[in-house]
Amino acid sequence: MANVVKRMNDIVLMVPGPTMLSERVIRAMSRQAINHRSEPFRKLYKRLVEKLRYIFRTEKGEIFILTSSGTGGMEAALANIIEPNDKVIVPIYGNFSQRMADIARVYGANVICKRYPLGEAPRLEDIKALLDEHEDAKALALVYNETSTGVVVRELEAICREARRRGVLTVVDAISILGGEKLEVDAWKVDICIGATQKCLAAPPGLALLSVSQEAWEVIEKTKAKSYYFDLKRYKRFREEKWETPFTPALHLMFALDEALDMIREVGLDNWIMRQKICSEALYEGIEGLGLEIFPKREWRSPTVIAVRYPQGIDDVKFRNRLADIYHIEVAGGFGELRGKIFRIGCMGIVSRKELFVVVTSIADNLTYFGYRADVGAAISRMSEVLRRL
Amino acid sequence: MANVVKRMNDIVLMVPGPTMLSERVIRAMSRQAINHRSEPFRKLYKRLVEKLRYIFRTEKGEIFILTSSGTGGMEAALANIIEPNDKVIVPIYGNFSQRMADIARVYGANVICKRYPLGEAPRLEDIKALLDEHEDAKALALVYNETSTGVVVRELEAICREARRRGVLTVVDAISILGGEKLEVDAWKVDICIGATQKCLAAPPGLALLSVSQEAWEVIEKTKAKSYYFDLKRYKRFREEKWETPFTPALHLMFALDEALDMIREVGLDNWIMRQKICSEALYEGIEGLGLEIFPKREWRSPTVIAVRYPQGIDDVKFRNRLADIYHIEVAGGFGELRGKIFRIGCMGIVSRKELFVVVTSIADNLTYFGYRADVGAAISRMSEVLRRL
Repeated sequence: MANVVKRMNDIVLMVPGPTMLSERVIRAMSRQAINHRSEPFRKLYKRLVEKLRYIFRTEKGEIFILTSSGTGGMEAALANIIEPNDKVIVPIYGNFSQRMADIARVYGANVICKRYPLGEAPRLEDIKALLDEHEDAKALALVYNETSTGVVVRELEAICREARRRGVLTVVDAISILGGEKLEVDAWKVDICIGATQKCLAAPPGLALLSVSQEAWEVIEKTKAKSYYFDLKRYKRFREEKWETPFTPALHLMFALDEALDMIREVGLDNWIMRQKICSEALYEGIEGLGLEIFPKREWRSPTVIAVRYPQGIDDVKFRNRLADIYHIEVAGGFGELRGKIFRIGCMGIVSRKELFVVVTSIADNLTYFGYRADVGAAISRMSEVLRRL
Repeated sequence: MANVVKRMNDIVLMVPGPTMLSERVIRAMSRQAINHRSEPFRKLYKRLVEKLRYIFRTEKGEIFILTSSGTGGMEAALANIIEPNDKVIVPIYGNFSQRMADIARVYGANVICKRYPLGEAPRLEDIKALLDEHEDAKALALVYNETSTGVVVRELEAICREARRRGVLTVVDAISILGGEKLEVDAWKVDICIGATQKCLAAPPGLALLSVSQEAWEVIEKTKAKSYYFDLKRYKRFREEKWETPFTPALHLMFALDEALDMIREVGLDNWIMRQKICSEALYEGIEGLGLEIFPKREWRSPTVIAVRYPQGIDDVKFRNRLADIYHIEVAGGFGELRGKIFRIGCMGIVSRKELFVVVTSIADNLTYFGYRADVGAAISRMSEVLRRL
């Protein structure tokens, strides 16, 4: 049968991005190109910026839509505020916080790193100590949700407010959590917030999203952009002068994003976030119900990326390949030190009971094949309890 | 009626990119997301690289597919070879050659510019003189087809060979001509060739395409990348190790490109190019048949972008807006100095008799409204003559 029934389009994507797209979003993308120097484009662009204000929870933030992955958004954030030797504080607690430090270094920053054990994240008190020690820091770069370890920074609001009080800019990578957890750019005083389309917004990959505060903008205006493609001043000028982008944008991804953001507005952002959170809580219950161990301690658990320790003796690649081949479910492995030790389930966007039940059941069945007995009944019953709140 | 019949999806796009997409390409894009860390993605990526070798005419060139506009590709090319104070020669003959110089400057290059009158392009002898004068130049950056003025560099092959002989790298922006004119990366000794999806390949916008020679690669290996997102060494490592991209790619644009490249392979690249060239020749005949003047002299005329001088007294914005509103046809205006003086017709990708006839007829009719009498009969008859070769 394996040769007859090939893996087709029926894969259930449960990786931490890209996420599954709704039929509505796929349909919205399926259209002819338009001229990006024409009124229909300008209307689309304006609409998207307004809809993104709603997502970022900002009234006055400058909104940018860049044709790039989320990493391009991180680069845009840092390339526009850093001058060589500027001090940038970067707490490191996984691959994406490491990436933030690496990008800052490309632009010649004096990067102050503080490492945390994998599975943990910095607390307000840690950040305060760092800020005390480095009063001359220009920026503090933080990953709100560290996708590589499945941890979330709990006190982001207090941290950003503290940095603002001290005149230190905050650059927050919210790529894997924007639209999946409370995030109030204006109220929390986030200076540069970076998101992407293919995570909790359930749009296709290829666009980075930025919100920039007035405080950060003042710095950007005084800073010579270290990139041409990611020069935010040029994007702002084109937007203000004519609602256009300086370079040809990925139009079809914008069509898709337009529809994806409509879906969120229709249910309301809070409900959209709550739905995903209930689903991830159900997944945590389900995974623990199977007798598996969650990688981060309870206090750090991400609402969008569920990192699970492998039981002794289960081979990561074999386990995930079989999960994909037989059950048509894709989950992600671990990075670096965590490779082979954990797998990660993305719980983002349009995920629903259907995906949750099938992923937990399939993981259980797959574990059995590898000699690990999992109690699928207990798992489903624990999930069901949480899912009543849906 | 104007309020009843709104402009919908029936616009005929005749701008110099993005171009119209075929139904096949739109359909190919209309699908669920996949995991970019999975076998189906690796196969797609491998396929695309092979198909792009065919388009760039290179066997050994390193192929890169970047999630960005073409300008991102230009940035990638320059950010990976330039060290501060490196001498880079950039002949300037329009907005995109100016952009090449601007990007090189962002990376601290000592940029040697030579300006040409708009509507002209450098000849081999000009380049030889520049290379003689600047023997220490590291690179020569050229725009093969200057989209802003509708001129093509005629002696690109001889120019690139000459530069290679002298050990000077060539960086060629072929964005608006890749797949629309003869271009032999290996045979012509082009070091870094930059293309994009939304022009003559008739795929949606959002991906930049690069081919890099072994000679350029040796330089890149010795150069510290000045960008993280556009660090080509990282892309190469990920590709060689696992046929993956370092950052989440714009999957749906890759699905679409895959199909667009199939369409080219089915007819053969030479035929695909020839078809577009016959169409643009027909357009030149049609435009002259209407009594309008082509902006560049005959020797420089681009095979993909037809730049037309406005007759005295015709307002650019009014003319183009009416062409879009009444005839549903979009052409582009001029940039900078040429704003208001020319309009530009893109003749790329899946353009056919149908678009050519409707665009020339509509331009003629629109001209009449603005008080200019055009001989549409003469135009169509001259076009018809050329189109016999289709």
